[in-house]
Amino acid sequence: MYFGADYYPEHWPRERWELDAKLMKQANFTVVRLAEFSWIKLEPEKGKYDFSWLDEAVNVLANEGIKVVLGTPTAAPPKWIMDENPGIYMKDAYGRVKGFGSRRHYCYNSPEYHDHTKRIVAEMAGHYQNNANVVSWQIDNELGNMGTMHCYCDNCLDAFKKWLKRKYGTIDDLNKEWGTVFWGQTYRNWDELILPAYTAGSTGESEGYSHNPSMWLDFCRFSSYSIAAYQRLQIDEIRKFSDKPITHNFDSPYSPVDFYELGKDLDFISFDNYVNLQWGKGTYQFHSMAHDLIRGIKDKNFWVMEQQSGPCGWTAMGDTPQPGQLRLWTYQAVAHGAEAIVYFRWRACTFGTEQYWYGILDHDGIPRRRYREIQQTGKEMKELSDLIIDSRVLSNVAMVKSYDNLWSHNFHKHNNEFNYLQLLINYYSALTTNNISCDVVPPDRDFNKYKIVFMPAFNLMTDALKLKVEEYVQQGGTLVITYRSGTRHWNNFMTTETLPGYFRNVSGVEVEEFDSLNGGRTVSIEGIMGCGAASVWCDVLSLKGAEALAYYKDNYYRNMPAITVNKYGNGKVYYIGCDLDLECLTRLMSTICEASGVKPVMSKPVPGVEIVKKEKSGKQYTIVLNYNDTQASVDLEGVYSNLLTGETIKGSLLLPAFGTAVLG
Amino acid sequence: MYFGADYYPEHWPRERWELDAKLMKQANFTVVRLAEFSWIKLEPEKGKYDFSWLDEAVNVLANEGIKVVLGTPTAAPPKWIMDENPGIYMKDAYGRVKGFGSRRHYCYNSPEYHDHTKRIVAEMAGHYQNNANVVSWQIDNELGNMGTMHCYCDNCLDAFKKWLKRKYGTIDDLNKEWGTVFWGQTYRNWDELILPAYTAGSTGESEGYSHNPSMWLDFCRFSSYSIAAYQRLQIDEIRKFSDKPITHNFDSPYSPVDFYELGKDLDFISFDNYVNLQWGKGTYQFHSMAHDLIRGIKDKNFWVMEQQSGPCGWTAMGDTPQPGQLRLWTYQAVAHGAEAIVYFRWRACTFGTEQYWYGILDHDGIPRRRYREIQQTGKEMKELSDLIIDSRVLSNVAMVKSYDNLWSHNFHKHNNEFNYLQLLINYYSALTTNNISCDVVPPDRDFNKYKIVFMPAFNLMTDALKLKVEEYVQQGGTLVITYRSGTRHWNNFMTTETLPGYFRNVSGVEVEEFDSLNGGRTVSIEGIMGCGAASVWCDVLSLKGAEALAYYKDNYYRNMPAITVNKYGNGKVYYIGCDLDLECLTRLMSTICEASGVKPVMSKPVPGVEIVKKEKSGKQYTIVLNYNDTQASVDLEGVYSNLLTGETIKGSLLLPAFGTAVLG
Amino acid sequence: MYFGADYYPEHWPRERWELDAKLMKQANFTVVRLAEFSWIKLEPEKGKYDFSWLDEAVNVLANEGIKVVLGTPTAAPPKWIMDENPGIYMKDAYGRVKGFGSRRHYCYNSPEYHDHTKRIVAEMAGHYQNNANVVSWQIDNELGNMGTMHCYCDNCLDAFKKWLKRKYGTIDDLNKEWGTVFWGQTYRNWDELILPAYTAGSTGESEGYSHNPSMWLDFCRFSSYSIAAYQRLQIDEIRKFSDKPITHNFDSPYSPVDFYELGKDLDFISFDNYVNLQWGKGTYQFHSMAHDLIRGIKDKNFWVMEQQSGPCGWTAMGDTPQPGQLRLWTYQAVAHGAEAIVYFRWRACTFGTEQYWYGILDHDGIPRRRYREIQQTGKEMKELSDLIIDSRVLSNVAMVKSYDNLWSHNFHKHNNEFNYLQLLINYYSALTTNNISCDVVPPDRDFNKYKIVFMPAFNLMTDALKLKVEEYVQQGGTLVITYRSGTRHWNNFMTTETLPGYFRNVSGVEVEEFDSLNGGRTVSIEGIMGCGAASVWCDVLSLKGAEALAYYKDNYYRNMPAITVNKYGNGKVYYIGCDLDLECLTRLMSTICEASGVKPVMSKPVPGVEIVKKEKSGKQYTIVLNYNDTQASVDLEGVYSNLLTGETIKGSLLLPAFGTAVLG
Repeated sequence: MYFGADYYPEHWPRERWELDAKLMKQANFTVVRLAEFSWIKLEPEKGKYDFSWLDEAVNVLANEGIKVVLGTPTAAPPKWIMDENPGIYMKDAYGRVKGFGSRRHYCYNSPEYHDHTKRIVAEMAGHYQNNANVVSWQIDNELGNMGTMHCYCDNCLDAFKKWLKRKYGTIDDLNKEWGTVFWGQTYRNWDELILPAYTAGSTGESEGYSHNPSMWLDFCRFSSYSIAAYQRLQIDEIRKFSDKPITHNFDSPYSPVDFYELGKDLDFISFDNYVNLQWGKGTYQFHSMAHDLIRGIKDKNFWVMEQQSGPCGWTAMGDTPQPGQLRLWTYQAVAHGAEAIVYFRWRACTFGTEQYWYGILDHDGIPRRRYREIQQTGKEMKELSDLIIDSRVLSNVAMVKSYDNLWSHNFHKHNNEFNYLQLLINYYSALTTNNISCDVVPPDRDFNKYKIVFMPAFNLMTDALKLKVEEYVQQGGTLVITYRSGTRHWNNFMTTETLPGYFRNVSGVEVEEFDSLNGGRTVSIEGIMGCGAASVWCDVLSLKGAEALAYYKDNYYRNMPAITVNKYGNGKVYYIGCDLDLECLTRLMSTICEASGVKPVMSKPVPGVEIVKKEKSGKQYTIVLNYNDTQASVDLEGVYSNLLTGETIKGSLLLPAFGTAVLG
Repeated sequence: MYFGADYYPEHWPRERWELDAKLMKQANFTVVRLAEFSWIKLEPEKGKYDFSWLDEAVNVLANEGIKVVLGTPTAAPPKWIMDENPGIYMKDAYGRVKGFGSRRHYCYNSPEYHDHTKRIVAEMAGHYQNNANVVSWQIDNELGNMGTMHCYCDNCLDAFKKWLKRKYGTIDDLNKEWGTVFWGQTYRNWDELILPAYTAGSTGESEGYSHNPSMWLDFCRFSSYSIAAYQRLQIDEIRKFSDKPITHNFDSPYSPVDFYELGKDLDFISFDNYVNLQWGKGTYQFHSMAHDLIRGIKDKNFWVMEQQSGPCGWTAMGDTPQPGQLRLWTYQAVAHGAEAIVYFRWRACTFGTEQYWYGILDHDGIPRRRYREIQQTGKEMKELSDLIIDSRVLSNVAMVKSYDNLWSHNFHKHNNEFNYLQLLINYYSALTTNNISCDVVPPDRDFNKYKIVFMPAFNLMTDALKLKVEEYVQQGGTLVITYRSGTRHWNNFMTTETLPGYFRNVSGVEVEEFDSLNGGRTVSIEGIMGCGAASVWCDVLSLKGAEALAYYKDNYYRNMPAITVNKYGNGKVYYIGCDLDLECLTRLMSTICEASGVKPVMSKPVPGVEIVKKEKSGKQYTIVLNYNDTQASVDLEGVYSNLLTGETIKGSLLLPAFGTAVLG
Repeated sequence: MYFGADYYPEHWPRERWELDAKLMKQANFTVVRLAEFSWIKLEPEKGKYDFSWLDEAVNVLANEGIKVVLGTPTAAPPKWIMDENPGIYMKDAYGRVKGFGSRRHYCYNSPEYHDHTKRIVAEMAGHYQNNANVVSWQIDNELGNMGTMHCYCDNCLDAFKKWLKRKYGTIDDLNKEWGTVFWGQTYRNWDELILPAYTAGSTGESEGYSHNPSMWLDFCRFSSYSIAAYQRLQIDEIRKFSDKPITHNFDSPYSPVDFYELGKDLDFISFDNYVNLQWGKGTYQFHSMAHDLIRGIKDKNFWVMEQQSGPCGWTAMGDTPQPGQLRLWTYQAVAHGAEAIVYFRWRACTFGTEQYWYGILDHDGIPRRRYREIQQTGKEMKELSDLIIDSRVLSNVAMVKSYDNLWSHNFHKHNNEFNYLQLLINYYSALTTNNISCDVVPPDRDFNKYKIVFMPAFNLMTDALKLKVEEYVQQGGTLVITYRSGTRHWNNFMTTETLPGYFRNVSGVEVEEFDSLNGGRTVSIEGIMGCGAASVWCDVLSLKGAEALAYYKDNYYRNMPAITVNKYGNGKVYYIGCDLDLECLTRLMSTICEASGVKPVMSKPVPGVEIVKKEKSGKQYTIVLNYNDTQASVDLEGVYSNLLTGETIKGSLLLPAFGTAVLG
């Protein structure tokens, strides 16, 4: 298993490199990522390349037995490129150029930038094609990060027109799908098309606010497509020289860039995992689901290419990781499918925007608490390596996540408090709190291996997906859907079917009406899961074959059904018509899982403790993670062996604050 | 009485139209509004017109006995017009173009757009000049809505210069009235003039922030004038072909566009009445006053051209109207002077920006609860029609509302918590809570028919208005003014008269000093209306003939007068020197009304119940409206007859939640 | 001692001037400031000058024995200048022109504007060179105010490049100091350099957000330099004609413009002192420290060129000064080193942006309470004049304030709650609450006259400053530093020394690690000053010779040192590793001062009462200021004489609300 850090030798005096490499080796490192952002050093003048410093760094590392991942440096085009081709700069929705001085200052659709990119990537791939110490390639860095998903330049307008033409074929079909007859926006030909830029009614609101929602959705697809195409352009260049595996380091899995699309062209997925940031932190489930999302991209284990190793932030810093947390977060990653951990960064940089983004070492380069904890973790990872590589998480349930749905909901979210990703996190949390692991999958994944499939607020649908879902239930699967599931055509216009639209047949209910709950208003609800409070939204249901499981207890729709179940073929469909408080939702998930034959990993959940069951070559093992800053005790069913210490554990497992255990 | 909905046949398959028309007839519809936003369908290419689809829609409706109002489609110029004349686009204060993709993307002062407008309006008016089914014309849609009151393009700069030249004649007079000597901004000629666009000190603040306040006021007047002139241009075209009454659907009566100005050129006023929106909702008085404002424009009954009929919003939805509310809001409109109700919209649109703006029917087109409630309401309206048409609200008191004052206050509001419109709403609410109806009138309306005239914070004054007010009081009227009334010349510079400036003579007080109450600070007050708390502002008064009615009880001006009354001729003038909490203000209004011979419609007010007395052809009747979501009981003085059921009512009237009654 | 007001005769009818002058004389005025903002009146056409009106105003004032300060009118270039040279307009970070209509609409680096400036200043200085009634010159008005510190026009880009070239000599040195290797931003030549304008990652954040912090710091230095150079250009012109003392009226001493730099070229400093504003108000210490900051610029007494005299604000007003406050604020200014008071403004202006910025007189020009209070204050100032002129504040302690540190902290503040200026104010407040006066000085001031020197969060350091500080302590001084002190090189990159970096040697501690406290988190602390709560930041210290004075009581670093003291040579160094609540900090300051032989002015502090000890020609006296709105009693040690009344005071001094006393 690869274990290491992101390293910037170019930031430090040449005479320090050997010491760094030795300290890395002592920390049990086997890999280091290098060179992304170093274009100006690799090509200081057009066509004049200098790989000598990088060769030297690779050698210094190789001398200590450390391999390297090389990043293509395209996230940071040098100033001379920008001066030669100012058209490369990205533009915002107001048409303003995002100038030099940061990073990611290029448009994905710039033909000039495509040329520059091909040149540097080919040169780099060629130079290192026979270097055995290079184990992998990383494309660019965090594509789409820092608000760079959308660009509004003329290159993008042209590319958007072409993309639309390919998609719709005729302008009439586009007009029909978008419903441009609304507000008289019909386009007569491809030339008339626009980008969803600044327009009347946009002021003080988010991008695209008053634009056509179908155009906005296509613009999101197009922007993601552009990023994927730009990534592919680099992959194609590398492949001319090298058959080493290629990856890209995704920033937050909650990013709006379609990682499913980008993932298709990659050999393996990696991502950047930060837990405590200047910008806040989430629950442990927030981060567990992040890993599961990443694993779900290719249904395959992944790398963490940047793993938090110290306090970090740009202008300000988040909380410092407490003793044990760096190790805990590493085990969390591994539990959910990471099979390589690369910490960001080796040593805090003294200059530049990220001078406060601490690494394993502080600015003074002296190993301290964090270094020692990572060193110890590395030792353990080496011992567990066989168990980790090619292992899989055992799960009977899946949650379907879709970028198209995300884009649609982010734009028209039907209630100001509604948040699609938060809803998914809530369902995920309610399951894991019951000790039930949950895969997170794209809609085109095979559903049949799961006992339960969750499609919360899955609003955009196709006829094919409708059929797939119906067959899945027909054959015995359990489907859980919610308010807003099935309400829209895939191109973001509303269905004219009675709601729940595409799920009407399978769910056995009709939405008689709904109530958007504003200003913190809540509605009491009572049913099989006990009492609770609905917020955000209430669908008022009428039963068309389904059975009611819970009822509203307030408002003019008092005693109308809120949650239902419907038998369909050999399976069943739950419809959850409202947003539930997390405790109520957790009880409901327990009931639904039990009714569908899904058992928890261990039957007695402990607050703040996560339990993940994995399998490797037919052998099962369990990872227990204590996120509490106090000791926790977990009741075990049966006898276990601690795979690191060899100790036999029976009865209850005692974990210290932030402690973990791997049980066989 | 006209009753119907806004209908977009172009959004639906041709084969649905007949069913829609039948359902409309069954819902007691007599009118439908059509065609605004349909320019691209009426003129798909320059000079090539296609009215066939609209003719067909008009016929389908005519077959069910339903008349139509036709909207000119100028709120949505087609893309081909914009491509031909990009100078038509509106620009914001930073000079940024508000591009295509929404609506209202044109400048009112664009000569090219004037030409396009004349062409399409003339063509449409000509085509329908002999169509008996067309009962009225609507100009454009919600002029000035969506932040389109001000434009900063070069056309506007030129037009502003001309407008100023017409107003001031010489540049010296302009400099004098504006006080451009301040900060050395003197203009030497008309060419040097500017628009109040982005300038130093504007950052992070509202438009125009650091500009000259007199220029800003003139810019507001000019912007309103431009809109009125653009409306007039359309009216003139229609009048060449048709003598049908012409209206415009104003958006919120609290809009900053001068509806008094626009109203002068219209045959009747209509407006768009939304109660529960994504952007929030107001008290019932907020909406009652909205109707009274609209009626006050021409002192004449009006249409509601868009009446809320379902949950609505753009990206998110407000609360769903509860059973009874749609009917209640219709009665509220009628009580305050509506004599036609057109619901927006017939059916929720599946695409476009407003796909969440629900109508009477849901996206699936199936009549449900809301349809049935409107159907019932239509039946009742038919029965009450004679009572409604040409009826008038009985009121002895008037509140003066002025757009010039609104603009002045919005720009320099003297205290951050001060809000001119909210102050008017507070006075209106204090009156109606006492069962006293209040007309809302422009300053040029005849005051002599009112026992009391309210001019709260009426800061801008002219010598003519001073004289008018003095004569009104001289002849026995009661005038109520407040802090900030009379402090400024009509062109927005401060008076050098001792305050209350223009009202100093008539009020018998002088403002010795004042205190702006910031950070939530309050000051106790005590007087004829009992105890209360002043916030926002305290004028410290010295009596020059007036009598003190209340005193401050805090601060260094403890025991100085806060509220006074002054006898002047046969009348009297109340001066209210501070902002009062609503309960205290309500008691004060009761006292003032009683002292001025104004009696409540019924003497015992019930919280949340509004009572409006009306008269038709000499016959009086009373509309009672229960805005509570619980039953309410109203004590009646005397014996009444329920005009819908014929039932005799004596003692107390019991109204269900959201219930209404019309009593004769 | 000069006493007077800012006067705009051009705003009022000529026939009023004599009355104004008489009222001024009756108010004990001896000086008036005139003419800033009056360029358009002085030069209505290019090269055609008209000083007649100003001559007349000077004469009218002279007739009443009132002298004048003349302001150069360059803060308000006339429209004809801007039309002739639109390149003069300032541009913002998005490249948007800040247009005409406010003031300060010019770029400091515009060559055209330099020419215009020289012409008007030379003409004015020449015209008044022999006028004995002119006692001083004021340059421009509030340089850098209203967001005009930074400009992003092409002139500025050129000037920035030149400034950088002068500073760094070679592009390689610049790249090294800035660390442009980070994110591959290396500049190959001076032409490639940029301004820190809009770039990726900037959206929704403050200016420059994602840029290189060393570039940003240099940009701040450059912007301040540009302002100072522009001021010098005017000074040079005046000096060709006049040897009268030259000043500039600084706006808030908390401004980010480097007043130390600007102050070097001025004969004396003046500033504009507003206490209760629309934008809020501070504690009395906030304003006392403001005065001390201003006095610290040249270690010399100063003028208040604009002293608040009424309620004020632009669109809205702050609280009205209560009876006694105007007098109190005048004494506060005098206590801290003002030796001239000029109230802003004589009379509230009826027009323009500042029509709500009240003066001594209201719009109606009638003397009222505020006039009488200022009249009385003027009488007292005349009596105290000898004591005030050339007096000095007695202080044994100094706080070091640095603009470079301010810029660095504002950009990368390490914790979102951290605020450099607030930290200084907290330390200042903790001292003055103990009746200990504190000088506020630039880092290049002589430290040796102080018993204690405070350098809170003094993060940017040089080797020379390190040496200076070490020598100061060596020779017996006490140094107080805090978390973040000494962490950075002067060019804003982090030190690679173990923290506290530059202070590591002298402090005898090492920062083992730190914890940024987010989301309101606090950590208990206990030590010599008792118990308290740390927020914002905790340095976890390891002792390298120092002694621990306080420990953390929470979190994983429980019982680790938080505050230490280290003996070094004959002196000692306190290290305060965390942000303390104000009460705890006040107790700590008391302990530290006592341990360093610094005694309070009087031993028993009274809340809300400030006591300042001054000295004039060897004679000491004490000013006592009661900021409470209630009576206060101060225990005196010894017998005093009230220098105004001659009364003998023994035991306790009774001060009314807002009362003051000058004791000898």
